[in-house]
Amino acid sequence: MESVEDLSLGPCTASQYLRPFRLRYRQNGISKIWDFMRSHDSVSILIFNTSRQCFVVVKQFRPAVYMCEMERKCPQNFERKKQETWNPLPNSLPASVGVTYELCAGIVDKPELSLEEIACREILEECGYEVPLATLKRITSYRDGFLAIQAAKMAAVWRIFTGRSGVGVTGSKQTLFYAEVTDEMKASEGGGQPEEGELIEVVEIPLKDSMDFAYNESFPKTMGVIFSFMWFQTNVAPNLLEN
Amino acid sequence: MESVEDLSLGPCTASQYLRPFRLRYRQNGISKIWDFMRSHDSVSILIFNTSRQCFVVVKQFRPAVYMCEMERKCPQNFERKKQETWNPLPNSLPASVGVTYELCAGIVDKPELSLEEIACREILEECGYEVPLATLKRITSYRDGFLAIQAAKMAAVWRIFTGRSGVGVTGSKQTLFYAEVTDEMKASEGGGQPEEGELIEVVEIPLKDSMDFAYNESFPKTMGVIFSFMWFQTNVAPNLLEN
Repeated sequence: MESVEDLSLGPCTASQYLRPFRLRYRQNGISKIWDFMRSHDSVSILIFNTSRQCFVVVKQFRPAVYMCEMERKCPQNFERKKQETWNPLPNSLPASVGVTYELCAGIVDKPELSLEEIACREILEECGYEVPLATLKRITSYRDGFLAIQAAKMAAVWRIFTGRSGVGVTGSKQTLFYAEVTDEMKASEGGGQPEEGELIEVVEIPLKDSMDFAYNESFPKTMGVIFSFMWFQTNVAPNLLEN
Repeated sequence: MESVEDLSLGPCTASQYLRPFRLRYRQNGISKIWDFMRSHDSVSILIFNTSRQCFVVVKQFRPAVYMCEMERKCPQNFERKKQETWNPLPNSLPASVGVTYELCAGIVDKPELSLEEIACREILEECGYEVPLATLKRITSYRDGFLAIQAAKMAAVWRIFTGRSGVGVTGSKQTLFYAEVTDEMKASEGGGQPEEGELIEVVEIPLKDSMDFAYNESFPKTMGVIFSFMWFQTNVAPNLLEN
């Protein structure tokens, strides 16, 4: 059980990591401005343990998820006037509202490694399995969808100031893999790199419970988990039954 | 065919929309710092036209996607030294690399409206169909997955400076609906609100081609499209065959 205390919200005028860029361009003859964040491409991996017929996913406390719930409860903490100083937040929400289930994943930041090599490293680091590169199966790739949602709203607000513009956040490419593991491939406990601030809990979801889990909204999760569990049902489970 | 020209990349020191916050807290006794962006919850809708047995999705030019491709080709434009001034970008990439297929979607920014009401408004505004509120079916909800990926990387970099921290971007809640429409429900052309900078093309994907489309990576798309097409195959298509 996670414990989260002494929350304080403050300004972030020069984040090392959240660096917005501004783009000017003409689309079909119309001048536009678009603010966006840089972000890395990423890989994520659906891991299925055949020895015990379960999926292997990770569970983490996510401050951004926790703060969404906090904002729902105490929107006044997020108003602009409060952004200039540090404001202690009420300690009223349990840490569990910020815990999410996710696929094992990592960003693509080493040009010398293939997507498959990065995926295998993440599986070992986060979940503790040594997976042979050649057994990894590519499912598909897609674009981060966050920008799509944000842009519509931002355009509407921006219009008040400039007449025409919009804002997007990231358009990075995500590639999804499938890896089958056995208990014999277990090389370590996983759990990420605590010295880098990662506190990852490895969780096994039995195959027989997986679709109930996927659609049970009381377990917060990313779409990658829901999609890949369903992909497995359609593309892998029928072969399991045959064998 | 979209035309995109006269691109110029510049600083964005005070975006109205990309406002980072910084959170300090203690997790299991360890002090942490986390930078994050605020974002709104959102709804997206899988629309199926029963008159013509096709899905109705939207297609838009997304600057953030375009710039990801640009960075892949010309990474030097994104280096820190260039961020202080406006830099013209080469006009070498066709606009089509920034066009993505997405579900009809909108953000949740009107407290007086239910998620269903917001979804119905977006369907009308973007795709031109008048859908009765009661016919909307909730599929599921999930958390924006972007933060998951970004955080791992950020923690690793930040460690150099502080020993322990991380960065996340958004943890907003996305709710996915399913709407069946008929040609008789068509009330307008859709296409969004051009006066707000939206340039949305409504696209129909025939049911029979939909899974090929979903897994064809040469059509950039969000995971919402892939997941919901597959959800339809499992949960709706079997009933269509029966009728």
